[in-house]
Amino acid sequence: MEKFALIVAGGNGSRMGSEIPKQFLNIAGKPILMRTIEKFSQYDSSIHFFLVLPSGEFDRWKNLCKKHHFEIQHKLVKGGNSRFLSVKNGLSQIPNTGIVFIHDGVRPLVSLKTLSLCEEMAKTKGNALPVIQVNESLRIIGKDGSHAVDRAFYRLVQTPQTFRTDLIKRAYFSIDDNEFTDDASVFETLDKTINLVKGNSENIKITCPVDLKIAETLYPVQG
Amino acid sequence: MEKFALIVAGGNGSRMGSEIPKQFLNIAGKPILMRTIEKFSQYDSSIHFFLVLPSGEFDRWKNLCKKHHFEIQHKLVKGGNSRFLSVKNGLSQIPNTGIVFIHDGVRPLVSLKTLSLCEEMAKTKGNALPVIQVNESLRIIGKDGSHAVDRAFYRLVQTPQTFRTDLIKRAYFSIDDNEFTDDASVFETLDKTINLVKGNSENIKITCPVDLKIAETLYPVQG
Repeated sequence: MEKFALIVAGGNGSRMGSEIPKQFLNIAGKPILMRTIEKFSQYDSSIHFFLVLPSGEFDRWKNLCKKHHFEIQHKLVKGGNSRFLSVKNGLSQIPNTGIVFIHDGVRPLVSLKTLSLCEEMAKTKGNALPVIQVNESLRIIGKDGSHAVDRAFYRLVQTPQTFRTDLIKRAYFSIDDNEFTDDASVFETLDKTINLVKGNSENIKITCPVDLKIAETLYPVQG
Repeated sequence: MEKFALIVAGGNGSRMGSEIPKQFLNIAGKPILMRTIEKFSQYDSSIHFFLVLPSGEFDRWKNLCKKHHFEIQHKLVKGGNSRFLSVKNGLSQIPNTGIVFIHDGVRPLVSLKTLSLCEEMAKTKGNALPVIQVNESLRIIGKDGSHAVDRAFYRLVQTPQTFRTDLIKRAYFSIDDNEFTDDASVFETLDKTINLVKGNSENIKITCPVDLKIAETLYPVQG
């Protein structure tokens, strides 16, 4: 079964307080985005990579690849005005047979174990979603103030959200609502059950300077 | 108005994979628990400290205080078999007038700003709870599988949970259920509204080796 990785990196880095979009900032001396692609390639070097970037960033990325002698083959895909449209653009280039890992470009700390769990579950059940437990008390905000809820019933969702390509393409191409920020929610419009697998707690999404400091400390995640 | 800090450190460190309870492990060269108390003392040196420890750990703590020349005055309180009972033991020693910060001993990264917001809100409204937004997609687990929920309506709860001492004592001493793991939930049994204030994202609870690495990187939090 062919495997595809759709690496989504459409962000503009505004929360980083940096001129450079966050996916291009360095971790352990190389752009975050390269570290992310390297991790998947380390997991399975036969994966076909599709990298979604704002088209205005293609040149910057190509120059970075030259500078860092980055040689993992990948195809560039033009980002859309929302995450939904960016993923849709990427999926339109991926065949109908196989599985696809849809992954945030700014999550270089995904573990090999998480990738393996996602792949196995998606192969057997059609989809997989890596999640972790909530470690803090949780409250819900309503019209009459906030109330404690039992965190044991909640999970935090990571990526790669992993799917049989035919199914996730059917979901994405049968709706037009581009407010979705999460592939599993799009997939659920097919009325199918989502299968949860255990993620790894280090697999944080790097969105602010504190995250970058943390990621630099944790990199690389073993196993 | 007198101020009290009830620092709760009853844990046994089993998740740390360490023989030494987590609150005694070092951050920047000193036990986590000292760093936590130092932060509060830096915020306001007139705070009266009550430190809840398992009684079997009193000697270890006293020796550490000698070794590190730790001179911030504090009273030791014997922990109970649950967090609820530990806090109750601590509250029984605190007068009825004033405000009390109830804080996890393993959160040394609370900011001065968070402490200030908690104090101001508790003084004017009787209680304050520091919370942060949920940065990941969130799912709820039910009998028929899991479903996406809108993370915008949820908040993650930190400490110090801060209260007028008379109110929180009334709440703790009017119930016997020791399953509560969160002071705000105990307080809510009084049918009072909980007031949320903005916490600081660095204020993590150190419960596993990854947390300790992260905390070491972030320490000290400024402001």
